[in-house]
Amino acid sequence: MPHIEITSDLPGISGLFAQRPDTGAVLSQLAETLLRSGSSPLDPGERELIAAYVSHLNRTAFCAASHGAFAAAQLDGGAELVTAVLTDVDTAPIRPLIRALLRVAAETQAKAAPVSDEAIAAARAEGATDAHIHDTVLIAAAFAMFNRYVNGLATDLPSDPSFYDVAADLIVHHGYGAAR
Amino acid sequence: MPHIEITSDLPGISGLFAQRPDTGAVLSQLAETLLRSGSSPLDPGERELIAAYVSHLNRTAFCAASHGAFAAAQLDGGAELVTAVLTDVDTAPIRPLIRALLRVAAETQAKAAPVSDEAIAAARAEGATDAHIHDTVLIAAAFAMFNRYVNGLATDLPSDPSFYDVAADLIVHHGYGAAR
Repeated sequence: MPHIEITSDLPGISGLFAQRPDTGAVLSQLAETLLRSGSSPLDPGERELIAAYVSHLNRTAFCAASHGAFAAAQLDGGAELVTAVLTDVDTAPIRPLIRALLRVAAETQAKAAPVSDEAIAAARAEGATDAHIHDTVLIAAAFAMFNRYVNGLATDLPSDPSFYDVAADLIVHHGYGAAR
Repeated sequence: MPHIEITSDLPGISGLFAQRPDTGAVLSQLAETLLRSGSSPLDPGERELIAAYVSHLNRTAFCAASHGAFAAAQLDGGAELVTAVLTDVDTAPIRPLIRALLRVAAETQAKAAPVSDEAIAAARAEGATDAHIHDTVLIAAAFAMFNRYVNGLATDLPSDPSFYDVAADLIVHHGYGAAR
């Protein structure tokens, strides 16, 4: 049961956004900028993959399933690729740059400390630019927030798992503004 | 040395906002809503105190000193009260509700897991409403992000510590939009 009253029947962060539209509006805008409309050398599917992976590391089932579905809907490998990444980044069939960036994301997820010089150098060796590193760190940092918001307040999971695919269809075609 | 090029001489998150105004704009708006202009039962000084405390727990010197200065500028106890809170929440001269909320914030900071029923019940016993609990968890979660962004990219500290008081004057009188 959530720690605060959620008057809608919306699960996870959707219920929080409906309950508190003031903060919901700016948090949706952040997700839209970071994961979709903001300029980035990473395409939206790759950005969603970082979000899903960090949410998985933070054991936040709602966010891992949501952003996993959003990544699957926008990546050639689909749900199978997302599952492979969440299962083992070392063996998942992804390009070396994305593998190196997921390691940068994992360090950012683990604690608020400088990403290691080794992880940065490994990403640079695979072609990472400042923008790749910036966007990866900020997405991983943002999900340190979103995951704590969703889990900290003990929000509910969807009663019907098809929720995630419906949300993916909304996000991919209309963006995060439409999903509030 | 920061992991990405910062072309300004601005320290901490200020350099990141100047470098990336696209994400800087929405992150400033989030800080403004959460810590100042958004409706909250907590006054801006109390919200800044939560931000400073979480940044201190995350060992993010730039954010702890910045938000510590912003809290000091807006709380009757000033810098002495902020230092007392960062040193020991249990003995700091704050009202019991704020002490209980700082414990909720510390649990949110520690990991992306539900805040304990005990910490929520203790805050309720001191008069916490849903809005107190929501705002505390979301501020603590947001500083899990801001702290990782600032530390993860290994940004610089100000060369002159008076930076924090200048920033406090700007924030208190003109808000986070003016400080970008």
